[in-house]
Amino acid sequence: MTPFQFILNGDRLALSRLLTQVENDSPAGRAALIELFPRTGKAHLIGVTGAPGVGKSSLVNQLVSHYRKTTKQRVAIIAVDPSSPFTGGAVLGDRVRMRDLAGDAGVFIRSMATRGSLGGLAQATANMAQVFDAAGFEIVIIETVGAGQSEVDVARLAHTTLVVEAPGMGDDIQSIKAGILEIADILIVNKADRPGVENTEKALKSMLELAHPTPRMFQHHGTTMSVPVPEADAQTALWIPPVLRTVSTEGNGIAELAESIAQHLAHLNQSGGWIMRERARLETELDALIRAELMSRFREDVSQKQYDEALEKILQRDISPLEAVKALMNGKAV
Amino acid sequence: MTPFQFILNGDRLALSRLLTQVENDSPAGRAALIELFPRTGKAHLIGVTGAPGVGKSSLVNQLVSHYRKTTKQRVAIIAVDPSSPFTGGAVLGDRVRMRDLAGDAGVFIRSMATRGSLGGLAQATANMAQVFDAAGFEIVIIETVGAGQSEVDVARLAHTTLVVEAPGMGDDIQSIKAGILEIADILIVNKADRPGVENTEKALKSMLELAHPTPRMFQHHGTTMSVPVPEADAQTALWIPPVLRTVSTEGNGIAELAESIAQHLAHLNQSGGWIMRERARLETELDALIRAELMSRFREDVSQKQYDEALEKILQRDISPLEAVKALMNGKAV
Repeated sequence: MTPFQFILNGDRLALSRLLTQVENDSPAGRAALIELFPRTGKAHLIGVTGAPGVGKSSLVNQLVSHYRKTTKQRVAIIAVDPSSPFTGGAVLGDRVRMRDLAGDAGVFIRSMATRGSLGGLAQATANMAQVFDAAGFEIVIIETVGAGQSEVDVARLAHTTLVVEAPGMGDDIQSIKAGILEIADILIVNKADRPGVENTEKALKSMLELAHPTPRMFQHHGTTMSVPVPEADAQTALWIPPVLRTVSTEGNGIAELAESIAQHLAHLNQSGGWIMRERARLETELDALIRAELMSRFREDVSQKQYDEALEKILQRDISPLEAVKALMNGKAV
Repeated sequence: MTPFQFILNGDRLALSRLLTQVENDSPAGRAALIELFPRTGKAHLIGVTGAPGVGKSSLVNQLVSHYRKTTKQRVAIIAVDPSSPFTGGAVLGDRVRMRDLAGDAGVFIRSMATRGSLGGLAQATANMAQVFDAAGFEIVIIETVGAGQSEVDVARLAHTTLVVEAPGMGDDIQSIKAGILEIADILIVNKADRPGVENTEKALKSMLELAHPTPRMFQHHGTTMSVPVPEADAQTALWIPPVLRTVSTEGNGIAELAESIAQHLAHLNQSGGWIMRERARLETELDALIRAELMSRFREDVSQKQYDEALEKILQRDISPLEAVKALMNGKAV
């Protein structure tokens, strides 16, 4: 039996080992990804993103508990923590979550530290999601911290993206990172028992109204600005992100959130949005793999010594980077 | 005369045209980059970053005015705005800045929209900085909005990175993006006449104290976690980022900020940090160019039809992405 066959039989240790192999992009991990790929494409990938302190983790916790009690779907969580020396993130986060969900064979939690290039992280996350998908987890939740490019990458990977806010994280709505609303399929005001919830909600809604003319699907295809909507895509643009209130510590609003996620999934299936997102996601993955393979072949062709000499000459301004690349590509000394 | 020679003679229209060519990565732009590269390496690249609403632009405005009045150095500003449909950013920003600095031949302001891949944006920004550097601008200020990867890229590009905060952008210091302090050489609490300035300043300082054991230079080399400090690098790790107060609308604290920037520059020169950052920066650039060139050659070798067919088979789960890449690389049909 291959390791993956053990995993299909419910061997959690084998699953954990394979996730590590896949995260490290090892030969065994690559072989398994090829083996399991035909079984992928079924899981609902849900991205959860928002600034630190809004209560994402406890929200995810409650949502997973809800699924386990109601639909009984198997759920995997991939928690992506920033590689900050300020946060000891991954391990502690694991422990807090584990306490509530431990012992449930239908739940698997995996933390990973962000590191290396962002492309590498997105790729590793995508591959781990594939492992869970093939292993029969019907929902894969990908939780990321921080703002900016990482959110965009999550949105590319996920079928449904939740953006979590909380009252008092800055009264000025301008402090919400530009672009964060663009990737949201569902907006959540968590900690909704705190003062200021109306203001946060109102500000989010008025920003959404501003964004109303923008077709949602377009943001997945790199053309965010003033592009006319083709007829065929028009129906996919009709999802207006709802703004929901939750108090994740009390479990309030969780059932409504799960219902909203189910509605978004139904919308994706009816509108053709699911296929569009699958295509965009797999194209992103294919491109990343092509880039990585090209770079790996380049490293085989060009020695470290040749590379270092080229860099030294650039530093001395003897040769420009563009000229150095040309010479290295053609196998010439710089 | 080449366009670049016109630029050396102070032709601003030629400079503007060349910047567009470089931004678009056109053949003329590439030729000019090779021509001008030997003249680069002199400018002090200063990154300015922070969330929307903290007053970065007016701070940059004041800082540039200060340089023009005192050191008389020539200053270029590259303003990188997020490609959000919510912000009409670039043009308006230009106008506001232009009003104060217009008509000064020693100042050049250039806005660019972020778009395409982040790698592409960082490369375009680096190339534009090279143009300004070669054209004799002694200071190049690169202003970015947002948090996350873009800040890291700015820090890689800049010799000195300023991170700007403001009181009331979230009382909870946890709302400051994890990692933002790691890239700061100088921290600025702008709008320091507002209530809450002491809290913001105190929170920043206590986070800096936590970070104290982390050697600053290491974050430029992709090894942020628990790496022992080699002897040779120890002296470069001694810069402790100061926390300064400014009120940019009034011009308060600007002279002190300029002084702090000058101290950081002196520190870089004495510690060898300047050379280390130059090497890291040019290595990043070399790698990006290698990647782009490899991709461009791949596109010449593999037709769009071959690529589309491969993607379709991946979508059908007939073949895994890893297998598809191997086949495409070896020129085989998938």
